[in-house]
Amino acid sequence: MGGSLAGALRGQCDAVVGVARRAETIDTALERGLIDGGTTELRSVTQGFDVVIFAVPVRAIVRMLHEFGPAFQPGCLVMDLGSTKTHIVAAMETLPRGVQPIGGHPMCGKETAGIESADPSIYSGCAFVLTPLLRTSDEARTLSLELVQSIGGYPLVLAPDRHDRLVATVSHLPYLIACALVATGQDAAASDPAVWEIAASGFSDMTRLSASDVTMMSDILLTNRDEVLRAFNVFEGQFRNLAQLLTSSDETGLQAALSSVRDCRVELS
Amino acid sequence: MGGSLAGALRGQCDAVVGVARRAETIDTALERGLIDGGTTELRSVTQGFDVVIFAVPVRAIVRMLHEFGPAFQPGCLVMDLGSTKTHIVAAMETLPRGVQPIGGHPMCGKETAGIESADPSIYSGCAFVLTPLLRTSDEARTLSLELVQSIGGYPLVLAPDRHDRLVATVSHLPYLIACALVATGQDAAASDPAVWEIAASGFSDMTRLSASDVTMMSDILLTNRDEVLRAFNVFEGQFRNLAQLLTSSDETGLQAALSSVRDCRVELS
Repeated sequence: MGGSLAGALRGQCDAVVGVARRAETIDTALERGLIDGGTTELRSVTQGFDVVIFAVPVRAIVRMLHEFGPAFQPGCLVMDLGSTKTHIVAAMETLPRGVQPIGGHPMCGKETAGIESADPSIYSGCAFVLTPLLRTSDEARTLSLELVQSIGGYPLVLAPDRHDRLVATVSHLPYLIACALVATGQDAAASDPAVWEIAASGFSDMTRLSASDVTMMSDILLTNRDEVLRAFNVFEGQFRNLAQLLTSSDETGLQAALSSVRDCRVELS
Repeated sequence: MGGSLAGALRGQCDAVVGVARRAETIDTALERGLIDGGTTELRSVTQGFDVVIFAVPVRAIVRMLHEFGPAFQPGCLVMDLGSTKTHIVAAMETLPRGVQPIGGHPMCGKETAGIESADPSIYSGCAFVLTPLLRTSDEARTLSLELVQSIGGYPLVLAPDRHDRLVATVSHLPYLIACALVATGQDAAASDPAVWEIAASGFSDMTRLSASDVTMMSDILLTNRDEVLRAFNVFEGQFRNLAQLLTSSDETGLQAALSSVRDCRVELS
């Protein structure tokens, strides 16, 4: 996500500098034309940049904000791409006076992570959540909106807890469902391997998310645990409602429930 | 599915004749070049054809087999495209001696039904389940295999109850999950409509099946009820296992479970 964003921003600002732990990452980003320059000196993020954007897992962002935060200079816009916002925004509150924090989360991405998968076009037409803090200045808010629009995204300003509640439903719950569905297939395959031979495009679409990076996803789930579990409870209730209509062979009730859902889904697409 | 199959078979046999209730369906199929001829006289299916393939909902196939079955002539291959097989094969058992029944279910399709959506190419590269009966002759089995291969599908011979158990896991359960996920989104949208604004491609993929035809899907679910409910119980157990690991913030256990699933899914694709 960071490499993709660097590539999308390059040419739209004076210079895009990549900061990464591994020199290979910087080399690849330079070769692919994603950055103007780069360094493996993580601490340099605090030195002289107008905008700093953290594109690492949620808990790594929180650690870095605590580690490097005190060294940021007033006026610097400190942003991130973390998939959950409550913990990050809480850490941003501890930044020195005058530093301008704002949370960010683009609602796009790929199953494949790493600089090799970077694609500057992924932000085009994509919702980009921004979670400003009370302390964030109007100038910093405007700059963040311009940044999102410059890469083709459309900004959506939300409070961090509201963001986390919504993504639990539309993103984290679907991931866990995809995983549980693959596990159900594995269970069936244990007694009959033919299950994989007849799995068609529908099953494939329904399980695509389960191929996501496990370290990244467990970081996301553990930093949004309560909302994810709450969304699961709602989902389980909805599923049990459908299962109950099926158990009682209530065709009229089943068709009414399925039709309501179908109308909603057709309207969305 | 019937129009698609007719189009795929046309030119590979002497003549493909479409039989439908509505004259408009026949007209459209003729205009689109899917059939050589057609009729709205349903009873004509019993008269002089070498192969008859029923492409209507499961319970309609069962009704038609009982209604027209006694009039079929010995040697006629009677096949179907129904999505569940146990009820259909049971009805096929009642066909007159010498009639050659075989169940069929191509593991492909579209969310959109009807002759307007017909696409003869959908069978290419697709698994096509065949469920011969004990009474089905070797010649009829061979003819059905040739039929499937002639349209680019690969035949998969299964017992009807085994077919129904497998599709419950890879097809019917995913449909109900997609529906319950949309219903969960509707529940969230009732208190915060922004949920639809941040739903991205992952949510879209995970709910695509919920746009399927409701009449067709309820017919399928009700003719495979016990297997669908059994698959749901397995799925619920798998989901609860993941939820429990999350509840207890057991990151090691969570990552192990998610990695096992991810490895399986990556290998499938």
